[in-house]
Amino acid sequence: MIVVLDPACSLREKAAVVRFVEQQGGRLLVTVVGDETHIGLIDAEAKALAPEIETMPGVAEVKGVAPPYPHVSREHQPGSSEVRVGDVVIGGQEVIVMAGPCSVESAGQLETIGRSVAKEGARMLRGGAFKPRTSPYSFQGLGEEGLALLLQVGTETGMPVVTEVVAPEDIELVASYADMLQIGARNMQNFRLLSEVGSQERPVLLKRGISSTVEELLLAAEYIVSAGNPRVVLCERGIRTFETATRNTLDISAVPVLKAKTHLPVIVDPSHAAGERSLVPHLARAGIAAGADGILVEVHNDPAVALSDGKQSLTLDGFANMMKELQAVAGAVGRGL
Amino acid sequence: MIVVLDPACSLREKAAVVRFVEQQGGRLLVTVVGDETHIGLIDAEAKALAPEIETMPGVAEVKGVAPPYPHVSREHQPGSSEVRVGDVVIGGQEVIVMAGPCSVESAGQLETIGRSVAKEGARMLRGGAFKPRTSPYSFQGLGEEGLALLLQVGTETGMPVVTEVVAPEDIELVASYADMLQIGARNMQNFRLLSEVGSQERPVLLKRGISSTVEELLLAAEYIVSAGNPRVVLCERGIRTFETATRNTLDISAVPVLKAKTHLPVIVDPSHAAGERSLVPHLARAGIAAGADGILVEVHNDPAVALSDGKQSLTLDGFANMMKELQAVAGAVGRGL
Amino acid sequence: MIVVLDPACSLREKAAVVRFVEQQGGRLLVTVVGDETHIGLIDAEAKALAPEIETMPGVAEVKGVAPPYPHVSREHQPGSSEVRVGDVVIGGQEVIVMAGPCSVESAGQLETIGRSVAKEGARMLRGGAFKPRTSPYSFQGLGEEGLALLLQVGTETGMPVVTEVVAPEDIELVASYADMLQIGARNMQNFRLLSEVGSQERPVLLKRGISSTVEELLLAAEYIVSAGNPRVVLCERGIRTFETATRNTLDISAVPVLKAKTHLPVIVDPSHAAGERSLVPHLARAGIAAGADGILVEVHNDPAVALSDGKQSLTLDGFANMMKELQAVAGAVGRGL
Amino acid sequence: MIVVLDPACSLREKAAVVRFVEQQGGRLLVTVVGDETHIGLIDAEAKALAPEIETMPGVAEVKGVAPPYPHVSREHQPGSSEVRVGDVVIGGQEVIVMAGPCSVESAGQLETIGRSVAKEGARMLRGGAFKPRTSPYSFQGLGEEGLALLLQVGTETGMPVVTEVVAPEDIELVASYADMLQIGARNMQNFRLLSEVGSQERPVLLKRGISSTVEELLLAAEYIVSAGNPRVVLCERGIRTFETATRNTLDISAVPVLKAKTHLPVIVDPSHAAGERSLVPHLARAGIAAGADGILVEVHNDPAVALSDGKQSLTLDGFANMMKELQAVAGAVGRGL
Repeated sequence: MIVVLDPACSLREKAAVVRFVEQQGGRLLVTVVGDETHIGLIDAEAKALAPEIETMPGVAEVKGVAPPYPHVSREHQPGSSEVRVGDVVIGGQEVIVMAGPCSVESAGQLETIGRSVAKEGARMLRGGAFKPRTSPYSFQGLGEEGLALLLQVGTETGMPVVTEVVAPEDIELVASYADMLQIGARNMQNFRLLSEVGSQERPVLLKRGISSTVEELLLAAEYIVSAGNPRVVLCERGIRTFETATRNTLDISAVPVLKAKTHLPVIVDPSHAAGERSLVPHLARAGIAAGADGILVEVHNDPAVALSDGKQSLTLDGFANMMKELQAVAGAVGRGL
Repeated sequence: MIVVLDPACSLREKAAVVRFVEQQGGRLLVTVVGDETHIGLIDAEAKALAPEIETMPGVAEVKGVAPPYPHVSREHQPGSSEVRVGDVVIGGQEVIVMAGPCSVESAGQLETIGRSVAKEGARMLRGGAFKPRTSPYSFQGLGEEGLALLLQVGTETGMPVVTEVVAPEDIELVASYADMLQIGARNMQNFRLLSEVGSQERPVLLKRGISSTVEELLLAAEYIVSAGNPRVVLCERGIRTFETATRNTLDISAVPVLKAKTHLPVIVDPSHAAGERSLVPHLARAGIAAGADGILVEVHNDPAVALSDGKQSLTLDGFANMMKELQAVAGAVGRGL
Repeated sequence: MIVVLDPACSLREKAAVVRFVEQQGGRLLVTVVGDETHIGLIDAEAKALAPEIETMPGVAEVKGVAPPYPHVSREHQPGSSEVRVGDVVIGGQEVIVMAGPCSVESAGQLETIGRSVAKEGARMLRGGAFKPRTSPYSFQGLGEEGLALLLQVGTETGMPVVTEVVAPEDIELVASYADMLQIGARNMQNFRLLSEVGSQERPVLLKRGISSTVEELLLAAEYIVSAGNPRVVLCERGIRTFETATRNTLDISAVPVLKAKTHLPVIVDPSHAAGERSLVPHLARAGIAAGADGILVEVHNDPAVALSDGKQSLTLDGFANMMKELQAVAGAVGRGL
Repeated sequence: MIVVLDPACSLREKAAVVRFVEQQGGRLLVTVVGDETHIGLIDAEAKALAPEIETMPGVAEVKGVAPPYPHVSREHQPGSSEVRVGDVVIGGQEVIVMAGPCSVESAGQLETIGRSVAKEGARMLRGGAFKPRTSPYSFQGLGEEGLALLLQVGTETGMPVVTEVVAPEDIELVASYADMLQIGARNMQNFRLLSEVGSQERPVLLKRGISSTVEELLLAAEYIVSAGNPRVVLCERGIRTFETATRNTLDISAVPVLKAKTHLPVIVDPSHAAGERSLVPHLARAGIAAGADGILVEVHNDPAVALSDGKQSLTLDGFANMMKELQAVAGAVGRGL
């Protein structure tokens, strides 16, 4: 429910509305759209208060029902948000490419990949140090050693680092090395983890769960933003369907759907969607053409021996070729890269 | 199974191989790849013949198992096919846009739409005269009257016509008015209908079933081509998944997957995938960026009163705007439009 | 929309209502529920007439919107329908087991299977003579020869025969041999075929499409019943999901959902759902426990050499064992078998 | 990979094999099947050791690849496991019904429900104190106050308590009140949480993720068991599909599939699968008929005012009626209840 205040509403009148709602146990979200001031009531019980609020001085209108994710909804904040990570701006005119290996494996591996992708135009470095794996017997990542390597190579190449955090108790450690915290697909509804990354300051890359709806993704983002951290970037990475020709089905429509529903930036991960190297450039081009603000892509200097996801990792040359194509497509939709 | 003939194989030797297979009741597919001649044996029983064939003079090699769709597989015909409809070539350098209303409703409606989309660069006219509808109480199309209007407006505007045929007994009638026959998603596994459109000469637009795999689509195309008609164009139009934010989920990955597996042209229908007008240009741009050879799109002069699919039909202005965007994206991937 | 007539409504008044609706171009469905007479208006435009109809003499009430499938809805016909096939009643107290091979292959095969399943309590004989196959190179069935064998073995063993019909032009032929016509999953939205089986008298077994919703299944049944044939039995046979441990996912919930929405009988096909012999008895038991009126199951005397679906066919012994289990479960839910 | 020891293998020879593997950094799982001793090597690198191991004295055979979940696989432990919770045995002859409200709301509510379900034959009490909710604005549970109520009502009624734990840091608290820890569907791949419940002694109820495959569920169980806790019960609770007539689609086939692949007990949650009270008894009956070892069901004394999941909660009378039906079906499949 949204209370729209009269432009002539006095501050005292506004305060009275706010106080009344709070006395009733309600929680408020106050936003300003143009010269309208909106007070969103985000609790289910709020509706019962509508008749009384409507008659208070300074109130112009009490409108319908609020979207269930008031902080991230574009309805309350029509302008698009930009999320700054180091000196990189996600959600602006430029399409941001984040590249690197699935797992950090060694200093040599990460340096080789990092230098190569930076030279070709990648703006951020990605790489996993804590890996959530379906099997307990798969490689689980290098842990803090991997984080240290990411920081070192990120610094050397001038790229801010994004890496996954899998549990609340790891946040402080990961945040001490990384510029942006990734919440992986399997943890998209790990609500405790969402609340905790919402209580710290690092920007967050939130990946869509493999079978989560767009609405559930927005509600997961709402957990983070409502806990205090507005620096959230959403990532479409493929959903689970009956089709087995690809690892997952990239839901390309989710890009324009999300951009219409939320002010947060939206990027695409073509690697996990495809599961197969040769498809990645096609999906990356499609993502940018559909309006994505960035691309998150796996690159490996020797995919055949990668400890995870080798099949879907671009080679260094493959990445270089793709970047030329992406520049052309970004230009065609009025963006830089 | 594929029998590769020795480049030095004589015609007499080749004929002997062919005769032997046919005597055993097998069916053959002979193709030439570079200077290799391949004889594909497309029956399940063929494998049993392999040892004998291998020893025949002129035979270089008997290779593994044939793909289950030998006529449409790129393995047998590495070069891409072009399908000609009137003077339009699908699968060539140019991306082809086919536009028109979901249902033909009246002469005035079709003329208005046809002239407008032709002016903006559409190359073919689409429109339904026989409509397969989920409910028996929904509008079922104008029938032959609709076909006559399509022919008239197609001729006036210089656009070949594509329209759906829903039953074998209608093929002759529809083919007497239309330049290309569409097999709709619901009939993708109506095998009798597939065989029948394979026994006539009009090119065929085959839409993927709403829950068909890529492999099932290729097998459906194989029904048509193996019956004698090689002029088949495939169309990705969205699959059924758990997501309800869009009518269907456009499987954008299917475009590069299909282009890798088959030599047939592949187009995208963003309208049925999206189910919502505002998303259509985003999906059309993504389709071209991913490598599609064409776009099939619904346009209506007054979507609010359309007898079917109004919600997802572009307005005339919307179509004009989209075409400018598509030209830019086609250019970025080295195509014309 | 449903017009409920006053119990005191005269026949003349009733005729006037009917005439009025028909003059407006509407189509009617008149049903009697207890001592209430309902007139269902099944066209979209009907709603506009509501205000005028409400004031006509003899009209008690004009209620909401009709379900989109008035003929098959339980709302209009609260009592359950029984469908008679020969001397077998589907939808009554007894759970009906229909058994036989996927494909009719030979006289010897069908006789062996038919006699065995009849002895163990099967009440109907199933078997395919026209097979819709995903690949054009798979066995397509014996055609009329297979139909003749079905008739012969059905007569010998006292079991009515159900077999698939795949095209309108085959209906007369198939109906001259078979007691019940099956519409397969791939043809559930072949609307021309639905209308044609609705225009003849043989009872129809309508299988749910592999990715059709419950509502679409009911609308497909409505095509048949509204064309004049009320003898329709619905069959749940598994839907396509992400899970690959089984061929399809048996939607067991569809049984009670369908029984609540329609008065038509509902049966379960555990063979196609499972795709694997060892699972079939478990799913058959579950189907009966959930309220199904029958079971359609594939049985083969030598599954290892079956021309189709051998992997999911029960052996003769396996069928005999399952029947004992089904009798116990049927008894537990108050049914016979 | 499984090393099968010769029945004549000496203990010294066995120790040598074990030592060799451990020196190479491998992890072992030793099981005895009949009079065969199996040593399962559960690391990916193990395969490289096969040739050397094969030549060691006392080794009979090195067999193929181990199932990816050696601890939970029925291949290694053919007999079924029983999991004891207080004096209740899950996986034995008796089908166990666990019942209670979705959320613990108050002492009065829980006492009323607990006494009623205990009287009708429920053997365990369920209820949520920590609720993972899709929206941050939904009721999140009473926390420790709810746990205390569960303990009190469980003790009074003689039913062990199962309740959900959503984060590693809560395990100790929850385990101090509850007899069994539930891992909810959204946390099935929260691998940190799985490892932590594997490192303590309370039995674990592991629910299948809404879009997890059967194999992923078994791998999640492997996380728990390989960490040291063999007391795991699996729960099928519906998967996400295209069908919207039910909240989720109960994958009834998963029951026999799981029972074939693992020795762990398997139960069914019909409430979350159905999402609608009237369907619950049908699905519960089907679950038992398909071979489930138990039923987990939501019951509320006043569903209309429940703080969560009221629509799918049985009333007290509905539960009593269902129990009579379940007793009959359990008897029909040779089980007690």
